[in-house]
Amino acid sequence: MKLNIAVLPGDGIGPEVTAQAVKVLKAVAMEFNHVFTFNYGLIGASAIEKSGSPLPEETISICEKADAILFGAIGKTSYDLDPNAKVRPEQGLLGLRKTLDLYANIRPIIAYEDLLNKSSLKKNQIKDTNILIYRELTSGIYFGEKKLSADGNKASDICEYTREEIERIAHLAFKAAQARKRKLTLVDKANVLESSRLWRRVVLELEPQYPNVKTDYMYIDNAAMELIINPKQFDVILTENMFGDILSEEASVIVGSIGLLASASLGKDHAMFEPIHGAYTKATNKGIANPIASILSAAMLLDHFGLDDEASLVRQGVDKSLKLHITTPDLNTKYDNISTTKVGDFIEDFIHNPDETNLN
Amino acid sequence: MKLNIAVLPGDGIGPEVTAQAVKVLKAVAMEFNHVFTFNYGLIGASAIEKSGSPLPEETISICEKADAILFGAIGKTSYDLDPNAKVRPEQGLLGLRKTLDLYANIRPIIAYEDLLNKSSLKKNQIKDTNILIYRELTSGIYFGEKKLSADGNKASDICEYTREEIERIAHLAFKAAQARKRKLTLVDKANVLESSRLWRRVVLELEPQYPNVKTDYMYIDNAAMELIINPKQFDVILTENMFGDILSEEASVIVGSIGLLASASLGKDHAMFEPIHGAYTKATNKGIANPIASILSAAMLLDHFGLDDEASLVRQGVDKSLKLHITTPDLNTKYDNISTTKVGDFIEDFIHNPDETNLN
Ligand SMILES: CC(C)[C@H](C(=O)O)[C@@H](O)C(=O)O
Ligand SMILES: CC(C)[C@H](C(=O)O)[C@@H](O)C(=O)O
Repeated sequence: MKLNIAVLPGDGIGPEVTAQAVKVLKAVAMEFNHVFTFNYGLIGASAIEKSGSPLPEETISICEKADAILFGAIGKTSYDLDPNAKVRPEQGLLGLRKTLDLYANIRPIIAYEDLLNKSSLKKNQIKDTNILIYRELTSGIYFGEKKLSADGNKASDICEYTREEIERIAHLAFKAAQARKRKLTLVDKANVLESSRLWRRVVLELEPQYPNVKTDYMYIDNAAMELIINPKQFDVILTENMFGDILSEEASVIVGSIGLLASASLGKDHAMFEPIHGAYTKATNKGIANPIASILSAAMLLDHFGLDDEASLVRQGVDKSLKLHITTPDLNTKYDNISTTKVGDFIEDFIHNPDETNLN
Repeated sequence: MKLNIAVLPGDGIGPEVTAQAVKVLKAVAMEFNHVFTFNYGLIGASAIEKSGSPLPEETISICEKADAILFGAIGKTSYDLDPNAKVRPEQGLLGLRKTLDLYANIRPIIAYEDLLNKSSLKKNQIKDTNILIYRELTSGIYFGEKKLSADGNKASDICEYTREEIERIAHLAFKAAQARKRKLTLVDKANVLESSRLWRRVVLELEPQYPNVKTDYMYIDNAAMELIINPKQFDVILTENMFGDILSEEASVIVGSIGLLASASLGKDHAMFEPIHGAYTKATNKGIANPIASILSAAMLLDHFGLDDEASLVRQGVDKSLKLHITTPDLNTKYDNISTTKVGDFIEDFIHNPDETNLN
């Protein structure tokens, strides 16, 4: 298979983790006789520094022509502490999601057997947890009109949803549930928000089309608690943009490190693959950033093109690295100097020699 | 002291837990020679059923005349599953918060030594956690304009904040931090939301007025994770209405049961005390509802009037009930039939005979 992959490393630890994912994809291409080409684009704070824009035209054009996009991370501390900045790194990522209409962000939350001890949660609480979060990604309060009064004393954001925006992702989530444990939980705040009531109404209406799926409705405040006290009750979680942002990062505690969480952002015509972690500025270039979220995002990219054996091999490599403690310090209590690159190298080697790779 | 207390038991388990708090307040009045009078008002689904309105005029008038309000819970499953309902129980609570301008909701999150094993989190993770959440309660997306298009295909909510709304609660939170561990964490989503950027700007501006307080800034998605992996890093958390709703319910996992969390909702002229849990409809009248959140809300009421010895005695009663496993089933693994009333009775007895109360 020929794949033209746009690579947007972005800011902070983005470049170093993305480099490991690219390395892994190259190994896959070699072993399975695929032709993957990689075209790099600027985005985020580094794009602002080099071009003045967080999302240069050229980046959009590279992405539009690509079969898939591999994204790193964006964000920078100086912007975080400057609420007056007019141009912000996040506009790059949000602009790209909107421009390419990547409306369905899919975030798997899987408790790895080998990492059960790493979680802040008790082992029996999380064992066997396997949740798929469907987060709406191109609407809601992220994209509704924003206003700041002329005197700077009043600010507002609109959270708006249309029936169509809800329906298209709800269908995907229902279908995913059908192929899994057949349970869907809609998370909203329908006791307070009009937009949440539209979500609830639409999902209640679609329910009969998926009679074999059990549908649950939960308020976001309650879900934030239930996710911790009883994560195993969830199969597919469907939710709006901001609630999905909050719940998925919270869910990282189940897995043991946010450095493990991958995601796919899908639209009708485009597909982007991105770790859910941020730019983690203070870890930049220290070799401590966990590349697994990025590598597993690459595995989701392979899934997307039906390259099941390839994706599975990448995941086996990840599993083996976890089992053998070839992991960055966020997970490692056994060895203290395994770097970002070393983890990438290990998984690359595994892909070339799945039967031989061992600790050395 | 003479106190005129409005009591709004509300829906679901509200009446049964509130009855225990009233019982405890009566015991306090008797032992300390206070005169507490109690005036009952309707609110929520039960008010809709009896009067057509979730917040009858008479209830507002009872509350306006009162020195303090003790609130139970509102909500009902039939409304949760009917996004088309025009009149909703929640309007009662939200209407009251707004009418009385109860803008500062204060939610203490304290890991009880005797309950460390009850949490889903590992013991060493939560031991000594003591967080005070300041949640803005009368603005933001809860109260901004809501719209549903005529064809029902588009819905929206506005999240709006003014500088003044932010300043008044920020000052309270800074002052609370000064009297504690001198750390304040503002939680927002300033990388995406205009309203959050106003929060960040205002708090950055107020910082110099509180030079002995260390101020931190955290995005809500990140905070939802950090609250679980490292709760001890927090002292006072300041946040807007909806983020406060989510974070405080999530934080209940640290304490071990949402049935333990009390709160105070304060304004310039009024003060309401309310458990953070909901109506928990399916537990109604089963005697399994935990009354401690309501009893600790009554303790916060006593605090509010400077009745420190009284409040402290109530808390000692709660501590003793926890130590002796006189608790409802959500916490109890030792005895299996300790009811809501029995917990209330125990704490009432303790107040009358602090030195003698024991297991019997
Ligand atoms: C960086 C930020 C804008 C982004 C978001 O909130 O969507 C990130 O937190 C994520 O979850 O992908
Ligand atoms: C019942 C609901 C409207 C309320 C809220 O969201 O504020 C509750 O969850 C709370 O936290 O007091």
